[in-house]
Amino acid sequence: MKDDKQSDLPIGVFDSGVGGLTVLKAIQEALPNENLIYLGDTARLPYGTKSPVSIERYAIQAAAKLQEQGIKLLVVACNTASAVALDSLREAMAPLPVVGVVEPGATAAVAAHPGGRHLVLATEATARLGAYSRAITALDPQAVVREKACEMLVSLAEEGWSDGDIARRIVRRYLDEADGHDPDTIILGCTHFPLLKDTIQGVADAGVTIVDSASTAAEAVCDALIENSLMRDRDQPAQLRLLATDGATRFARVGGQFLGHDLSYKDVELVDL
Amino acid sequence: MKDDKQSDLPIGVFDSGVGGLTVLKAIQEALPNENLIYLGDTARLPYGTKSPVSIERYAIQAAAKLQEQGIKLLVVACNTASAVALDSLREAMAPLPVVGVVEPGATAAVAAHPGGRHLVLATEATARLGAYSRAITALDPQAVVREKACEMLVSLAEEGWSDGDIARRIVRRYLDEADGHDPDTIILGCTHFPLLKDTIQGVADAGVTIVDSASTAAEAVCDALIENSLMRDRDQPAQLRLLATDGATRFARVGGQFLGHDLSYKDVELVDL
Repeated sequence: MKDDKQSDLPIGVFDSGVGGLTVLKAIQEALPNENLIYLGDTARLPYGTKSPVSIERYAIQAAAKLQEQGIKLLVVACNTASAVALDSLREAMAPLPVVGVVEPGATAAVAAHPGGRHLVLATEATARLGAYSRAITALDPQAVVREKACEMLVSLAEEGWSDGDIARRIVRRYLDEADGHDPDTIILGCTHFPLLKDTIQGVADAGVTIVDSASTAAEAVCDALIENSLMRDRDQPAQLRLLATDGATRFARVGGQFLGHDLSYKDVELVDL
Repeated sequence: MKDDKQSDLPIGVFDSGVGGLTVLKAIQEALPNENLIYLGDTARLPYGTKSPVSIERYAIQAAAKLQEQGIKLLVVACNTASAVALDSLREAMAPLPVVGVVEPGATAAVAAHPGGRHLVLATEATARLGAYSRAITALDPQAVVREKACEMLVSLAEEGWSDGDIARRIVRRYLDEADGHDPDTIILGCTHFPLLKDTIQGVADAGVTIVDSASTAAEAVCDALIENSLMRDRDQPAQLRLLATDGATRFARVGGQFLGHDLSYKDVELVDL
């Protein structure tokens, strides 16, 4: 039975796949009392290779599915959708507050090193969209930003090979390829990359600040809940629902790595958009 | 202007993405006089995470698009589509001859080591479908087959990191994970993996036969052309057309690595299915 108290409604989190579970996990850690509902549009991933018009349409469909379930805030836990469709989502979902992953990451990077040099590790699609560069230079025109596509880091995270020698060598190679940029911050501009945070920190020069866009998004969610008086105050156990549009078995297997505990396919509800 | 001589028609090759270009390249090498037309359904890749019903529908749409252009033979250069939809495609396209990638690979492996032990390196989706195991044991009930998902090899090939230290370590790790199987043959059960053939051969025990399913598919195309009296006998330059359903720029960049020469996005025609 749905509780009609607004603050008891879940926070809706959506991504094209399982990557956004790193954002979900960061929200769980920051806000353990909050009910959460996650939707991974696994039937249509990856969004990154789709046209902006399609990405916008998919994102709005996914958001509408979460809105149907009753949510109090929407988190766009997908860099591509955040880059392409955030304004349209805000318009379509108004007055629901909508938090993306790009703005909080950009804000944290600028706060850490004003006028600094930022290296954004991302998927090819996100890097091409240049959303972090725009968001950072809008906040800090002196900042110097480089976005670097690192597709192998996605498969490392999905394969569960986030640490060890192979991971270090791959991270080293990408950082070497971006050499000469000499960053003050490295922004994890893909929701998969928080799994590789320790490896990246270990390989990067000492003194480089790693900006984890999952944690920074969770902080932005916190702020938005306070601002909209939507923080859940009950001391009752929080609920979590996981929805996916395809492949519950794979979602459970890979998603378990992202959440840091085992999932069964029975934990995943299949939905159509 | 379309030549109405049947043997002058192109061979149609389709895949969910760029991987099938390794098959196209093997066909070009084996049959340099043949006209070729390639269709990569890049808007809907990967097929592997889709349901069998969707894969069958997509494969038939892609085949019909190639048939519209006029082709004399269809090659299903996609392991997932070969595993799921080959019978339906043969029925839908009859009397057009249809060649998949699984059967020729299985046949070559059995011929190399009757009663042998076969290790199939594949994507997670192909490994799960078990099509190589079925095809091999149908030909040779004594054969022992293990299918091993090796997703990182896909991204290695797409990143252009097919040789070198990182590639060797990743291949080594997968072969170690399949240890105890002690194979006589290693079957490259993903169209991306022919790019890694030398690396895999270098890491595998001496004496292991590598079965390259791109080359074996090209041989099967050769046989089918002879059987159906469709071999092109003209001594005129062969034509190649490349079609994709999305992302011409990425198709050209990654596809160039697969074909072994530079492609421009202008070489790729975008089509709708």
